[in-house]
Amino acid sequence: MSINELVNNSVVSWMTADGPEADIIISSRIRLARSLAELPFPHLLSEEEKGRLMLDKVEEAIKPLPHLKMVMLSEISDLDRNILLEKHLISPEHARNNSPFCGIITNNDGSVIAMVNEEDHLRIQSILSGLQLNQAYRYADDLDDSLEQTLDYAFDDQRGYLTACPTNLGTGMRGSVMLHLPGLTMTNRQTQVFNSINQLGLTVRGLYGEGTEALGNFYQVSNQITLGQNEEDILNNLWTVTEHVLEQERATRNYLWSEMKYTLEDRVWRSYGLVTNARVVTSNEALALLSDVRMGIVMGILPQVPNRVLNELIVAIRPAHLQKMAGREMDSDERDIFRARVIKDMLTKNIKEG
Amino acid sequence: MSINELVNNSVVSWMTADGPEADIIISSRIRLARSLAELPFPHLLSEEEKGRLMLDKVEEAIKPLPHLKMVMLSEISDLDRNILLEKHLISPEHARNNSPFCGIITNNDGSVIAMVNEEDHLRIQSILSGLQLNQAYRYADDLDDSLEQTLDYAFDDQRGYLTACPTNLGTGMRGSVMLHLPGLTMTNRQTQVFNSINQLGLTVRGLYGEGTEALGNFYQVSNQITLGQNEEDILNNLWTVTEHVLEQERATRNYLWSEMKYTLEDRVWRSYGLVTNARVVTSNEALALLSDVRMGIVMGILPQVPNRVLNELIVAIRPAHLQKMAGREMDSDERDIFRARVIKDMLTKNIKEG
Repeated sequence: MSINELVNNSVVSWMTADGPEADIIISSRIRLARSLAELPFPHLLSEEEKGRLMLDKVEEAIKPLPHLKMVMLSEISDLDRNILLEKHLISPEHARNNSPFCGIITNNDGSVIAMVNEEDHLRIQSILSGLQLNQAYRYADDLDDSLEQTLDYAFDDQRGYLTACPTNLGTGMRGSVMLHLPGLTMTNRQTQVFNSINQLGLTVRGLYGEGTEALGNFYQVSNQITLGQNEEDILNNLWTVTEHVLEQERATRNYLWSEMKYTLEDRVWRSYGLVTNARVVTSNEALALLSDVRMGIVMGILPQVPNRVLNELIVAIRPAHLQKMAGREMDSDERDIFRARVIKDMLTKNIKEG
Repeated sequence: MSINELVNNSVVSWMTADGPEADIIISSRIRLARSLAELPFPHLLSEEEKGRLMLDKVEEAIKPLPHLKMVMLSEISDLDRNILLEKHLISPEHARNNSPFCGIITNNDGSVIAMVNEEDHLRIQSILSGLQLNQAYRYADDLDDSLEQTLDYAFDDQRGYLTACPTNLGTGMRGSVMLHLPGLTMTNRQTQVFNSINQLGLTVRGLYGEGTEALGNFYQVSNQITLGQNEEDILNNLWTVTEHVLEQERATRNYLWSEMKYTLEDRVWRSYGLVTNARVVTSNEALALLSDVRMGIVMGILPQVPNRVLNELIVAIRPAHLQKMAGREMDSDERDIFRARVIKDMLTKNIKEG
């Protein structure tokens, strides 16, 4: 899939909602950090070296691989970089990077993407819908293997893959699962659940990483440890914990439904009423209201809307997407007005008949 | 109109919304306090005297007047008394009175009603839709004249009509206008307006009298002074002040529309979204939301619903009306659920096409 398609398609791979448990598990993501042997890490390279020493090698590596394409960030507008960021396809650091030698490698179907000259020389990542950690790992691993046919990775028998930041040493792998947990949050049980997750060496972040906890009740669970565990251990561990949290969320929703039916119905209908009638809405308020709406739809309380549309909404209400859709720059006040209209239209147009 | 009809008709005279300025001025009310000569005030009468000395005289007075009927409160269930109270047709004190000698006189079309053995021997009142103080006075005055053909009122050339409470001495008349002032309240200008009203010898109360200020942004403006002014002076004074407040409210709404369009639209649409989607709603929250909705409908922002329905809603959401409609007793939690359904049904069923 070309960068143009990734930017312009309203739905990318992880947003399709066709993965297992996609009502609660938004996406599974695998990221592999890789460094080239005998080459300083990107923050130690001069701009010229990033180009000559690093980029030239990568270009050579993908030349025999016709399903891969590389695009330089400098060819992409600021707005489109933010579109990729809002779709969780590149990191905030990569979106902001001014170097002319930062790039993105994509494959045919957009199921895997690699950032070139980010914190590491290469960050390969695959994000899929629902609980598909193993499949995401396979996609990332395939690209990794393809590139390794030509590239010489920095690897140490003792420490495994060498990375710019020591927290990634070893497998260089981070697996993350994005979960929607409004039930646990409503009943104030999320802290307890997250504490036990932390004790298992996993970490919990918000929708857009550190400091965005509780935004729309979306939480990313990911492995902390990359050293002393192989990829299979990490995937199994993360998968087990995710399954456990998923069960807790489902059990809590069942409890709410059987014990607090009116309170629950009132809450999701009110949020639906607000989000489909408001004329001005900030992005944080929209995420909070859409969180209730998502749960209400999934639980069959509200009119049915496909999960794909609900995923699309999380992204469509962000500043870059709104401006892309409007076809012009908008200040924050204008965006709040336009956002209200977009949400109302997307929800009401996509209500399934019957 | 029989008491049965007053209880069971969903709309009584003042709720028809066919009076002048009925979008903002809900109703005009005239009340005349009258005492019978040579008879102690009700609170000084024994129960037996209330019957023998007082009620017998009143029964005799209405005998030659076939358009008048008297019903004793003891013949009316507690629920139906509260229905009359919620319709503003009798006072809280009268609704609660356990004496077997308290009654209500009604005329054919329900445009005038008199409480018998309330604080005064007779309290004659007429409530009409919109700004109709003079017409309401005429109705009350007609009943007053009819009764006076037989009854001997306590009247003193110096002090006028003598009443149980000295604050009613003189004309015994209280005129009140119920206004809906969300614009002034939203812009926080109501205090200033009410202060100037007080300086003119008028008083401002809430929807259900003292202590219910700001409930649904409904305010009753009425005269304080009954002594030293004749009926015409009181009516003119009240009419002038009401016209002034009405103009202020209209000007404020125009200001909101031209200067804060999005904020205003957002507010009324949100309230509409909440009140038509909530599954549980208290009566105070309902009044607050319906206040925004009423303004939004009147200003053409929201789908059109007749003012009559909006007046009906103010009353239909009260506890006695809800229980009457449900045909059974309901506790507060059940009422909150039933109230939400009633509001949603009444609003959505009464949206005018086109």
